[in-house]
Amino acid sequence: MARNRLTPNRHLPFGDRQEAPFYGKDILGVGQFRRADLHDVFGVAHEMREMVARVGSFDLLKGKILANLFYEPSTRTMSSFTAAMERLGGSVIPISEVHYSSVAKGESLPDTVRTLECYADVIVLRHPSLGAAAEAARYARKPVINAGDGPGEHPTQALLDLFTIHEELGTVDGLTVTMLGDLKYGRTVHSLARLLCQYDVQLRFVSPDSLRLPEKVKAELDEAGIRYEETEALDDVLGQSDVLYVTRVQKERFDDLAHYESVKGAYVIDRDTMSRAKPNMVLMHPLPRVGEIAMEVDDDPRAAYFRQMEYGLYVRMALLAMVLGKA
Amino acid sequence: MARNRLTPNRHLPFGDRQEAPFYGKDILGVGQFRRADLHDVFGVAHEMREMVARVGSFDLLKGKILANLFYEPSTRTMSSFTAAMERLGGSVIPISEVHYSSVAKGESLPDTVRTLECYADVIVLRHPSLGAAAEAARYARKPVINAGDGPGEHPTQALLDLFTIHEELGTVDGLTVTMLGDLKYGRTVHSLARLLCQYDVQLRFVSPDSLRLPEKVKAELDEAGIRYEETEALDDVLGQSDVLYVTRVQKERFDDLAHYESVKGAYVIDRDTMSRAKPNMVLMHPLPRVGEIAMEVDDDPRAAYFRQMEYGLYVRMALLAMVLGKA
Amino acid sequence: MARNRLTPNRHLPFGDRQEAPFYGKDILGVGQFRRADLHDVFGVAHEMREMVARVGSFDLLKGKILANLFYEPSTRTMSSFTAAMERLGGSVIPISEVHYSSVAKGESLPDTVRTLECYADVIVLRHPSLGAAAEAARYARKPVINAGDGPGEHPTQALLDLFTIHEELGTVDGLTVTMLGDLKYGRTVHSLARLLCQYDVQLRFVSPDSLRLPEKVKAELDEAGIRYEETEALDDVLGQSDVLYVTRVQKERFDDLAHYESVKGAYVIDRDTMSRAKPNMVLMHPLPRVGEIAMEVDDDPRAAYFRQMEYGLYVRMALLAMVLGKA
Repeated sequence: MARNRLTPNRHLPFGDRQEAPFYGKDILGVGQFRRADLHDVFGVAHEMREMVARVGSFDLLKGKILANLFYEPSTRTMSSFTAAMERLGGSVIPISEVHYSSVAKGESLPDTVRTLECYADVIVLRHPSLGAAAEAARYARKPVINAGDGPGEHPTQALLDLFTIHEELGTVDGLTVTMLGDLKYGRTVHSLARLLCQYDVQLRFVSPDSLRLPEKVKAELDEAGIRYEETEALDDVLGQSDVLYVTRVQKERFDDLAHYESVKGAYVIDRDTMSRAKPNMVLMHPLPRVGEIAMEVDDDPRAAYFRQMEYGLYVRMALLAMVLGKA
Repeated sequence: MARNRLTPNRHLPFGDRQEAPFYGKDILGVGQFRRADLHDVFGVAHEMREMVARVGSFDLLKGKILANLFYEPSTRTMSSFTAAMERLGGSVIPISEVHYSSVAKGESLPDTVRTLECYADVIVLRHPSLGAAAEAARYARKPVINAGDGPGEHPTQALLDLFTIHEELGTVDGLTVTMLGDLKYGRTVHSLARLLCQYDVQLRFVSPDSLRLPEKVKAELDEAGIRYEETEALDDVLGQSDVLYVTRVQKERFDDLAHYESVKGAYVIDRDTMSRAKPNMVLMHPLPRVGEIAMEVDDDPRAAYFRQMEYGLYVRMALLAMVLGKA
Repeated sequence: MARNRLTPNRHLPFGDRQEAPFYGKDILGVGQFRRADLHDVFGVAHEMREMVARVGSFDLLKGKILANLFYEPSTRTMSSFTAAMERLGGSVIPISEVHYSSVAKGESLPDTVRTLECYADVIVLRHPSLGAAAEAARYARKPVINAGDGPGEHPTQALLDLFTIHEELGTVDGLTVTMLGDLKYGRTVHSLARLLCQYDVQLRFVSPDSLRLPEKVKAELDEAGIRYEETEALDDVLGQSDVLYVTRVQKERFDDLAHYESVKGAYVIDRDTMSRAKPNMVLMHPLPRVGEIAMEVDDDPRAAYFRQMEYGLYVRMALLAMVLGKA
């Protein structure tokens, strides 16, 4: 088709604000979101929340097709994007066995993406390799949304984490946010910390010494002028935390199994922990959890981790509507 | 969200009849269906059959989302629920590789279900473990439909079996229903027998001695006052059967392969068998079949096993509409 | 149901033209398409292209369900049919793990197809065995579309190839079409050559001697009076080619690895090749490619292989609409 014979200059710089912000753009990492962008996304996501509460689904993206291209399985993320598209009246092409198929025949990611965009209007990509989403976006004419590129980013997770704080507490400024667990390898923690640099917050990092936040992330906090403290003991900071963000300490991160065994139980949140927390603290977890938060906590009104999943739906609905120019 | 901060008492006792029966309820086992309930379900299922015949699909559940959560593959059941939801204008989140994903990371069934209900309006669960559906339902705020929990139940199969009899013969009362094959391990046979206790029927059980109906099921028949006979020879009861329900004799059920070989061919239905059956007998099979019914029988008008699949579609449409309060 | 009790005579001979051509018919192989049929299909496919350009999707098949039954994975073909159905407002039952499920329990293809047609309105079948689609169609009451039956046919691929030529150059008559690569085993090449027999074309076949076009296909060309030439050197025919159709030389086709190594690089298309081609030549490839066409060629306006994927969408939309009587 004629339009393929041109080289379109779709990739406007992120700062270049248009009538419909994010229309036609890729969502690759949290670095592309300034505070005003976050405000835009959360405004739309909040509207999505209200529409879902009122009517469940609506036809904003009727006739649009999402290609859900997952090179590694992620039930939660794939289901969330599927539901987001379906609640907006759109359709989904699910591709979760890509490793058995064309790719097994040696097809490159750019070719796969350029094929899929012949069928779909937007591509959600999950891939084990750092930079895969950026590479896909470089070749695609249609918007690409990064749903995790290995050790790279998972920006919709970070956005939903921040949106959860925003919706649960009504604001982000002025809060003390504590992050707990594996802060060295935890991708979600790094991304959320980066996003929080856009706000007036204080951060607390609680981890075993061997799993402290990387220097690189701390340098970014310093540059943004964010006040933060590190400690090994949750009780040092529990009472002052408005948000407690718990992550898993993954066995596979340890060379030394004895070290893992000594550390794994140290940061389990239970009713006793909650009794010492602020009465309106928000307890978050990216899930899946494997014992980091006891089930007895689930009925506590402060336990926000399942609501967090629901907020993720609204954030993904917002992003899909925005990149397709319908919000 | 506020509603999460309450502990809703959604699980009303089954006997507690409301305006819209089954609205918001789980479908876990055949034990929850009294005769009036079956009448309700079959009434709606019959309407579904007529609507599909007339218009193919319609928008009764437009905007609703079904999460098809399959921990073990079952093409037939998954496809049937997918079609049921789509013919009602709703959408589906297909989750068939759950074992590769979050669950492989150790997530519990309650957590998976509580995540999925953030995205979906109803959850269909297939799981290899006894009691899995009941456990899921205990934690879920949204309705859970049991699509088979290992050695447990598969209630929509039993309902479609009974609905098949009802639609093919116009009634259930007064019939003689014969069940053939592996009656010891055959879950479908046990569930159908239990449902038939609500009607005025006579039952005949035909199996090798080693695969007879368990005492537990017979005790339930006795308690319900159902007249039944057991035999090893189909010809003892073929001529008096209004329904012949054939099941597979699965090789993997036998410790002794020689015994399997001696038994497996004994209950094959072919044209000769059919020549000795009633002219309006209904021949059923839950499928897949592997030789229990010869293909030469397929053109016999009494061969109902493919229609049985179609009735399954209508029963599942009915249940989805009912638990979502639209029927 | 009553209609099952009849043996319908749905399979009218292909030549028997009705009001709505292909309504209720199976799409099994290219042999069933006469030139007038191709004209019909391409007319509808062209309309689909214009509708998609104008409105993206529309509700021509709203309420219809496609069962995408894939016994072997093919991301590209499955995605294309999914998108085709969704852009027409219909729904899809995706079945890509069929080998783990009922079939693993030994169910026959006819039984699987007769079950699925209880749920769906049309069945797309991909199967590794020659003749599988024809066998499925023999038993199915609903239309079956062959999406590849192993060494057999993949007619929608051949139709999209021909449609690409038709749309890119406005005509097929009078063209010189060159096919390059593995012409011995390349199923797409054989099918396209057969379809081209309906037109006034000249063909050129470029391959290593060991991978020449089979005698059987050449006999068909002879019978149709098609003029063709064979050569090992692309440059012999490059300058006169209106279409250059490149295929992969698959390693697994060679008994002798040394032979593979000597041959594999011989037919790589790069910018230098393109500089010697006609200024409006159409460069095609069924994809996936693994080095047969250098990425530097992708920006050349003559590179049509990604547009080819898009034409595939329109052809599949056309076929679905036609067999379901809506075009």
